[in-house]
Amino acid sequence: MTLETPTANSFSLPFGEQRNGPLYGKDILSVHQFSREDLTHIYTVAHEMRGMVARIGTFDLLKGKILANLFYEPSTRTSASFTAAMERLGGSVIPINNVQYSSVSKGESLPDTVRTLECYADVIVLRHPEVGSCALAAQYASKPVINAGDGIGEHPTQALLDLFTIFEELGTSDGLSVTMLGDLWNGRTVHSLARLLALFNVKLNYVSPDVLKMPDEIVAELNGKGISQQAFTELDPILPETDVLYVTRIQKERFESQEAYDAVKDLYVITPDTMKQAKEKMIVMHPLPRVGEISMEVDADPRAAYFRQMEYGLYTRMALLAMVLGKA
Amino acid sequence: MTLETPTANSFSLPFGEQRNGPLYGKDILSVHQFSREDLTHIYTVAHEMRGMVARIGTFDLLKGKILANLFYEPSTRTSASFTAAMERLGGSVIPINNVQYSSVSKGESLPDTVRTLECYADVIVLRHPEVGSCALAAQYASKPVINAGDGIGEHPTQALLDLFTIFEELGTSDGLSVTMLGDLWNGRTVHSLARLLALFNVKLNYVSPDVLKMPDEIVAELNGKGISQQAFTELDPILPETDVLYVTRIQKERFESQEAYDAVKDLYVITPDTMKQAKEKMIVMHPLPRVGEISMEVDADPRAAYFRQMEYGLYTRMALLAMVLGKA
Amino acid sequence: MTLETPTANSFSLPFGEQRNGPLYGKDILSVHQFSREDLTHIYTVAHEMRGMVARIGTFDLLKGKILANLFYEPSTRTSASFTAAMERLGGSVIPINNVQYSSVSKGESLPDTVRTLECYADVIVLRHPEVGSCALAAQYASKPVINAGDGIGEHPTQALLDLFTIFEELGTSDGLSVTMLGDLWNGRTVHSLARLLALFNVKLNYVSPDVLKMPDEIVAELNGKGISQQAFTELDPILPETDVLYVTRIQKERFESQEAYDAVKDLYVITPDTMKQAKEKMIVMHPLPRVGEISMEVDADPRAAYFRQMEYGLYTRMALLAMVLGKA
Repeated sequence: MTLETPTANSFSLPFGEQRNGPLYGKDILSVHQFSREDLTHIYTVAHEMRGMVARIGTFDLLKGKILANLFYEPSTRTSASFTAAMERLGGSVIPINNVQYSSVSKGESLPDTVRTLECYADVIVLRHPEVGSCALAAQYASKPVINAGDGIGEHPTQALLDLFTIFEELGTSDGLSVTMLGDLWNGRTVHSLARLLALFNVKLNYVSPDVLKMPDEIVAELNGKGISQQAFTELDPILPETDVLYVTRIQKERFESQEAYDAVKDLYVITPDTMKQAKEKMIVMHPLPRVGEISMEVDADPRAAYFRQMEYGLYTRMALLAMVLGKA
Repeated sequence: MTLETPTANSFSLPFGEQRNGPLYGKDILSVHQFSREDLTHIYTVAHEMRGMVARIGTFDLLKGKILANLFYEPSTRTSASFTAAMERLGGSVIPINNVQYSSVSKGESLPDTVRTLECYADVIVLRHPEVGSCALAAQYASKPVINAGDGIGEHPTQALLDLFTIFEELGTSDGLSVTMLGDLWNGRTVHSLARLLALFNVKLNYVSPDVLKMPDEIVAELNGKGISQQAFTELDPILPETDVLYVTRIQKERFESQEAYDAVKDLYVITPDTMKQAKEKMIVMHPLPRVGEISMEVDADPRAAYFRQMEYGLYTRMALLAMVLGKA
Repeated sequence: MTLETPTANSFSLPFGEQRNGPLYGKDILSVHQFSREDLTHIYTVAHEMRGMVARIGTFDLLKGKILANLFYEPSTRTSASFTAAMERLGGSVIPINNVQYSSVSKGESLPDTVRTLECYADVIVLRHPEVGSCALAAQYASKPVINAGDGIGEHPTQALLDLFTIFEELGTSDGLSVTMLGDLWNGRTVHSLARLLALFNVKLNYVSPDVLKMPDEIVAELNGKGISQQAFTELDPILPETDVLYVTRIQKERFESQEAYDAVKDLYVITPDTMKQAKEKMIVMHPLPRVGEISMEVDADPRAAYFRQMEYGLYTRMALLAMVLGKA
């Protein structure tokens, strides 16, 4: 629908029209939709995006393309990341951030809203508090819908950027010992990442209080794929062999009493002391925001990868936008 | 004030600087300001916009121009539509969507706000809950102001896009039988559209419960222009001859009792059964959002034009922005 | 990090890469950071921006650069002004206007937020209700942070634009008699402007009710710099010699009783009658929004400079953005 952008070619981009690319015209709804080959393809493009941003900052691959950034609940980081991804590709954004006050409050249904927005935009990024809302939207939209989090459901681009972080920082994910720490029961982030990692030859370690352990359903699913999994209530035993430490937040509200919370909370705070027991070559990740799970003293440690993780998020989302729009 | 955009010419656009165009530098405040000739001119440009979007998606006709999109009350669709219109023309947008929290809450007057914003922007789109606010803003602004809805007053770009939809879908509006259905008493949309249609040789049919009939004032105004008008309380008698069925929402709150509401509400719901009685070549329109007035089963009917109507809104607003800025 | 924009050169801009410019890579946090030479440099660029906007409206000096416009409290004018400044320079904006609903509400700290946003953007504009927040942000960010107001702390770009207004309107600030009127106790605006003016050879006159007089600390600071200062409770004695009348708002809440407020409020309202006592060549300024401090009848007086002041704000912010990004 859109003219080729000559500027893109003049930068000698490694990109071209890829209308037969594996994600062209597709929705990004769930980590379940990706094969190992898809991931390789996405990360090849994301890595190229990283290089392009380092070299020229912004380029016109998606010039003339418009993203409707539809957020039914606030998420500064995810919204800003998609906006930046589109703008660094030369595209434009329609920001729709306060839908609680909008025509949705007049009773408009999600299918009607997305069918309206696709009259204006080329791709829709949707954040919504209800599980399944993105699949519903995609069913009605003829243009690509990207799930930016639907309640306790999925947040596939978070999982994709998490895995991309591991690839870029450690060069591979095969053979790695990945330790997930904190609230593994409620964490949609760790659930999705675990499922993506199951496509590779990894060892997964779960460290959490018993009430917040990884759900049996996921453990069973990954067992079925032959993934080695171990559960711990403390970090110490497994930290020394850990290649990737993925920290998540434990919310006080998950516990029955203040005492129950106080009993475990300090076990799961990462400090410079903690880091002394870790490998020299390993990384600490966190989906952010953090609220004390990693002390700020750790930030200066080169193994602290959580801010670089945000940056990898930019490249991952640039890759996804370019691919669903047939430009990479 | 802005340099000619060479890119525009390189696309062989049918557009050029039109500083003597009929809308150059003008405000868009009311449907009353348009003659039949103006409409022809607007729709010629809007039709060209449609072709350009189909061929190249986005182009640089308004590159370097800035729109201040000033919304004192939320309206996702209208706001997104103007944003997309400006972005598809290569221009930029200053989104101002939450004015309840802004300097207006410090007591700033509308005249001061628009005189401030026109220091930054080239054109102002204004949505405001008070009747007459856009005229007030236009009185103080030296740059064009476009009314995006002022309370129960006017919403001229909605009426313009409604009429453009009729032209594009049916090729003309002369000779048509246009049936307006639902709440005709409170509907600023149908009032404005009726007034625009009165410039053409149409027959207007009003279908509503008695308490929600078309106001006498408007009926009298259109009678004075020789427009044939008929009122009904049911759709059945007039549906078979209808070329355009314009459906609006009936709000429960308009009725004195639940019984009074229940008595009429089902009479005005459009279903596939309803459509069996309609002409083969006709269109169903709705300003959206709908809340059950048209069942979702009707969406697949090619006569269901309400989503295409949203798209025509984009072209209409692109035309208006280009024209008031002297570029079409 | 970003490719040179050939478009910029093709407009024969007086701008080029100035990676050794005095503000390149710097934060803009406080008026205290500027020397007289810095101001001369900033205003030379701002004046060039004024000329460029007059001639071509928008140009591509910052094409490909991204501004994160991070507002923790609403400020329509300041936010719109920075957005317009970035867009007129060809750059893009990530608008973040409702942080009360965002990850900050999940407890994210400001240092983490800015370190996240600088993964996406090239420069961060920050408005925050707490004094010192911008300095804190700048301490953690590796990219430039521009203070757009931190509580009762500083609002340096307001002071810079105020002084630029004086330069552009009166050609100099040396030798001027500058009268500040209204609430001089709480006005961060007049405090910052007074400090900037102290770099020049000016005479400062303070007109306020006794309870709202200029704080002793600032008077002492400026005395130490040899600035002549006089305090008044009425405008009449000093108006005839005034070159710049800087009006600020007096809020009823600052007074102990309605009577105390009523006793002074009318003394400080500028009307056409007031203007009869003023010089023929002088200017009236106001940071806006006004709520009756200057009657609307004064707006037509050519000496009323407060809307032009908004426009100078655009040029000042364009200059600052270009300079911190090494492009001017």
